[in-house]
Amino acid sequence: MKKPKWVIEKEQGRRASAAETVWLFGLHAVRDALRNPDRTRLRLIVTKNAYNKLAEDIDASGMEPEISDPRNFAAPLEAQSVHQGAALEVKQLDWGSIEECCMAADGQIPRVILLDRVTDPHNVGAILRSAEVFGARAVIAPHRHSAPETGALAKSASGALERQPYLRIKNLAVAMETLKSMGYLMLGLDGEATQSVAQAVEGRTDRPIALVLGAEGPGLREKTRETCDALVRINAAGEFGSLNVSNAAAVALYASRD
Amino acid sequence: MKKPKWVIEKEQGRRASAAETVWLFGLHAVRDALRNPDRTRLRLIVTKNAYNKLAEDIDASGMEPEISDPRNFAAPLEAQSVHQGAALEVKQLDWGSIEECCMAADGQIPRVILLDRVTDPHNVGAILRSAEVFGARAVIAPHRHSAPETGALAKSASGALERQPYLRIKNLAVAMETLKSMGYLMLGLDGEATQSVAQAVEGRTDRPIALVLGAEGPGLREKTRETCDALVRINAAGEFGSLNVSNAAAVALYASRD
Repeated sequence: MKKPKWVIEKEQGRRASAAETVWLFGLHAVRDALRNPDRTRLRLIVTKNAYNKLAEDIDASGMEPEISDPRNFAAPLEAQSVHQGAALEVKQLDWGSIEECCMAADGQIPRVILLDRVTDPHNVGAILRSAEVFGARAVIAPHRHSAPETGALAKSASGALERQPYLRIKNLAVAMETLKSMGYLMLGLDGEATQSVAQAVEGRTDRPIALVLGAEGPGLREKTRETCDALVRINAAGEFGSLNVSNAAAVALYASRD
Repeated sequence: MKKPKWVIEKEQGRRASAAETVWLFGLHAVRDALRNPDRTRLRLIVTKNAYNKLAEDIDASGMEPEISDPRNFAAPLEAQSVHQGAALEVKQLDWGSIEECCMAADGQIPRVILLDRVTDPHNVGAILRSAEVFGARAVIAPHRHSAPETGALAKSASGALERQPYLRIKNLAVAMETLKSMGYLMLGLDGEATQSVAQAVEGRTDRPIALVLGAEGPGLREKTRETCDALVRINAAGEFGSLNVSNAAAVALYASRD
């Protein structure tokens, strides 16, 4: 028997809303999210021990925590999650459009990181931290084939997920064109490139610059590569080895400044 | 009943030799170790599938692989290890002394990374990769309270563990003094420092430079801090956030060059 249409729609709705919520875990990640006024918070599950550590922030947030037994922690987390007795269900943050996020503002020199199929949450978490430290406007990645906003990503981001815009878009090449039309110089990181980041930005570090990084191994996709203004590499001392993608992003951000 | 002395000695011997061997896992890590002539290899366990992928390197190594059922993989690995059907027991590499590893050689400008209680194997693996890319002589860490040479570290190091000296020493401050007596400028990374890496090395990038990084949170220990020639920071754009330690190491290495 076919399911009636209203059942299908209800199921789809439930799936869609579940996809929009994230369980953050760990004392730091939960505390940062409790302190973020832009976070929509749904459920808070804590052990007594974790409650004591977070009491001030929980009270300030106005949430009613559910107290859970540490031996049978009630939040739906993956088995190896180091939750430290604290889990918070939240909605994903809405950072607005690329235009809003990445527009030039007075006194600041815009930098943006774009990720082409970087799927590892620990790497994306570390990239969000570097983006925040070096003042990048946003980290931009497609909805598909990139690391979703998860508890593991939030933990690696060490608070940066609450403060650093992480924009998920439909199509990377379209986002790149948007940024180019806003005046961004679009540089793709590629180990085979002939010029270095420093060479490519020399004399134009006051321009908005976007840095595109691909997954380790495959690197940038053909379409991504074609949409760049130039391909650049990070100068290495030897022939062997390659940087971890988050390390490459940090060095590229640093090298793109004055 | 007390154990007889010979039993205790035998047990201690077994523990000591077990501590010196490491199970590497994953196709890349196993392949890199098979290709490394300096590796002492003890046991190789592979599935038929992995054997087919590694056949050439296994033959060249002269090892007799033990073929294992993928559903009940015979190597003593942690449950969540993504071994891809390949595991290789090896002895730790012997990189020699600090003096041998870190001596200035013609044409190269020595850089060294020292780690003060950095325990996360993924971070240390990424640091080994960056050290290799930027031509650092060695990554140096104490035996205690730092990431041991494990399969997880090897996997994060993506081959660099076979090529990049990773020296485990007894006492970090003693190692720092040794490097200073060899002419190294000893710079400790510290978010509160007043000068940047770039400022500290200006006009002396041709000198041997050692960069010391502490664990996230606690940072450098007091004794480590005191043994540095200077404390330096990485310039940030804003007030919030901090770099992941491997990202900080990569940027510091980059910034310490010309």
